[in-house]
Amino acid sequence: GCGFDIVSGGELARLRHIGVAGEQIAFAGVGKTRREIREAIQTGVGWLHVESEQELAVVAEVAAELGRRTRVAPRLNPDIDPHTHPYTTTGTAATKFGLDAETVRRLFAAYRDHAYVRLCGLHMHLGSPIRDVAAWGRAVGRLRALADALRADGHDVEALDLGGGFPAYYDEHSDPTPDDFARLAERQLAGAGYRVLIEPGRAIAANAGVLVTRVLYVKQGRDRRFVIVDAGMTELIRPALYGAYHFVWPVQADAHVPAGRGSRQPFDDLIATDVVGPVCESADFLCRGRPLPAVQPGDLLAVFGAGAYGMSMASQYNSRPRPAEVLVEGEQVRLIRRRETYEEIMTNEK
Amino acid sequence: GCGFDIVSGGELARLRHIGVAGEQIAFAGVGKTRREIREAIQTGVGWLHVESEQELAVVAEVAAELGRRTRVAPRLNPDIDPHTHPYTTTGTAATKFGLDAETVRRLFAAYRDHAYVRLCGLHMHLGSPIRDVAAWGRAVGRLRALADALRADGHDVEALDLGGGFPAYYDEHSDPTPDDFARLAERQLAGAGYRVLIEPGRAIAANAGVLVTRVLYVKQGRDRRFVIVDAGMTELIRPALYGAYHFVWPVQADAHVPAGRGSRQPFDDLIATDVVGPVCESADFLCRGRPLPAVQPGDLLAVFGAGAYGMSMASQYNSRPRPAEVLVEGEQVRLIRRRETYEEIMTNEK
Repeated sequence: GCGFDIVSGGELARLRHIGVAGEQIAFAGVGKTRREIREAIQTGVGWLHVESEQELAVVAEVAAELGRRTRVAPRLNPDIDPHTHPYTTTGTAATKFGLDAETVRRLFAAYRDHAYVRLCGLHMHLGSPIRDVAAWGRAVGRLRALADALRADGHDVEALDLGGGFPAYYDEHSDPTPDDFARLAERQLAGAGYRVLIEPGRAIAANAGVLVTRVLYVKQGRDRRFVIVDAGMTELIRPALYGAYHFVWPVQADAHVPAGRGSRQPFDDLIATDVVGPVCESADFLCRGRPLPAVQPGDLLAVFGAGAYGMSMASQYNSRPRPAEVLVEGEQVRLIRRRETYEEIMTNEK
Repeated sequence: GCGFDIVSGGELARLRHIGVAGEQIAFAGVGKTRREIREAIQTGVGWLHVESEQELAVVAEVAAELGRRTRVAPRLNPDIDPHTHPYTTTGTAATKFGLDAETVRRLFAAYRDHAYVRLCGLHMHLGSPIRDVAAWGRAVGRLRALADALRADGHDVEALDLGGGFPAYYDEHSDPTPDDFARLAERQLAGAGYRVLIEPGRAIAANAGVLVTRVLYVKQGRDRRFVIVDAGMTELIRPALYGAYHFVWPVQADAHVPAGRGSRQPFDDLIATDVVGPVCESADFLCRGRPLPAVQPGDLLAVFGAGAYGMSMASQYNSRPRPAEVLVEGEQVRLIRRRETYEEIMTNEK
């Protein structure tokens, strides 16, 4: 079955809006408010992934107030480094996420006979994107070892949520494939009979989205060419925030059909280019020093892999209205999010 | 007189909304669209700060179409490093901003007799916050030298916009003061008779704003304490994006009245603390390893210096509604921006 892993009341509201039933939802996140926990329990979410002892106490209080029995899966912090960007590493002891194995065992024992919360699963999430599949396998092994220990203590452990972070295709990096992860999970969990949940959001969404932006001006700097476009860090902050690589290429480029998404392309007339946006700071770039074909004002550029952490992280910085989103299904093209107006930026101001 | 430096059509709309006349507005920004240029000229802005030859061509076309004479101040890239964060450095040749002096002189000559655009000022902006006041002084010197050369070429140079980046009080850093900048500007510009414009936005706004956030959970990690609060990178991205320092302290701290805003405070019962938000990544922190008093769930923390690049850069990442803004004037407290609702996050989606 397919489900949804969410981390906020806003995402819960979004799922309710599109008619997703509570049972399919796992509510993760290190800082759920009491209000969000109440909404989640009222919606009847399948799982609450708790990340601290205090949070579990709030869940228990709210579940008791509402008289609703609630399934809880504590999040294990496996303390393993997946060797991704420090900002998207979430499974080492230096991060805010999860609980150590000893605390998880203590919580299972403490809540064994609780009338309203039932600890019966475990969660982990190592970071994203994970390029060190062996590290992920070790973390799954630790999760399994903890689950087995809990069973040996007499607890019921129905499900293990192995988290996400499975890479998307951004460039020619030889990333681990879904098969690599699946094989490791199979090896670590063989014969144990746990139900397995995964969170493959980025791997599904990243390449479902392309940011299309128009060239405004081309300017030759002293040691580089600047292509100034009408999108930037307000639409896609990943280059600035994570040093992320996104493949950028002109939409019309018949003489320059790219060979994959790497930064080395087999043409000898490319120009080292910074593609930059209109925002008033140097963080506002989409790529830097990238060999690209010549472009003119009015040309469109495609920025690939923008479907994950693109629009979801967009801001109105510099009072810039957020762009429209268009869904392409075969020959069908449909507006799924209207372009914002200046008025909407100010709508809540008094 | 007081004016406003803007960088987008949205900011222009905002100023029109509050009734600011066109003449008081300088429109800067490296990527103005034709539509924005048209709106600016129709509004009768005082200055357009152009940053590329192609942009100036568009300004000339639009001004001619509209039959409106428009004052233009090209932006000089002085190629001087103010030694601030690379993302907020805007005056070196490696950045997208401005034009070199030779190009500026060429443009003044080329547009000397243009019927609709009148080049009669210069702009620069070195970055922000500027801690190397001597570097700024050298840049002002280069701007003056260019202005003098233009006058010697027979051009009219009315005004020099020296940009901004004057530091705000974030911590006990011994930053240059407004007097330091003023003295240098006076020395560089003495006797020249240029009208001087400055852009002191951060210095005015940063400490007009405090982000107040509530403690949700306190969790002892293996080597640090995590205080999980209900605000994070969605409300204040500066710590994650620029490694920025913001002073954080409990609102109720009678036994711990802080001595200034430094990270060293004169108490021996402080605990090294990461103050982190609810967002599902490790970029979501307000401070790390900061010695802070003990706090409990429900306590409020104040994050200082949040009035500049706080709410203006806020996002709805993780479908988090943006917070309310409250204006405090003496004893008066007034809601100036409503808290967003879940429904508003989805309002433009179809």
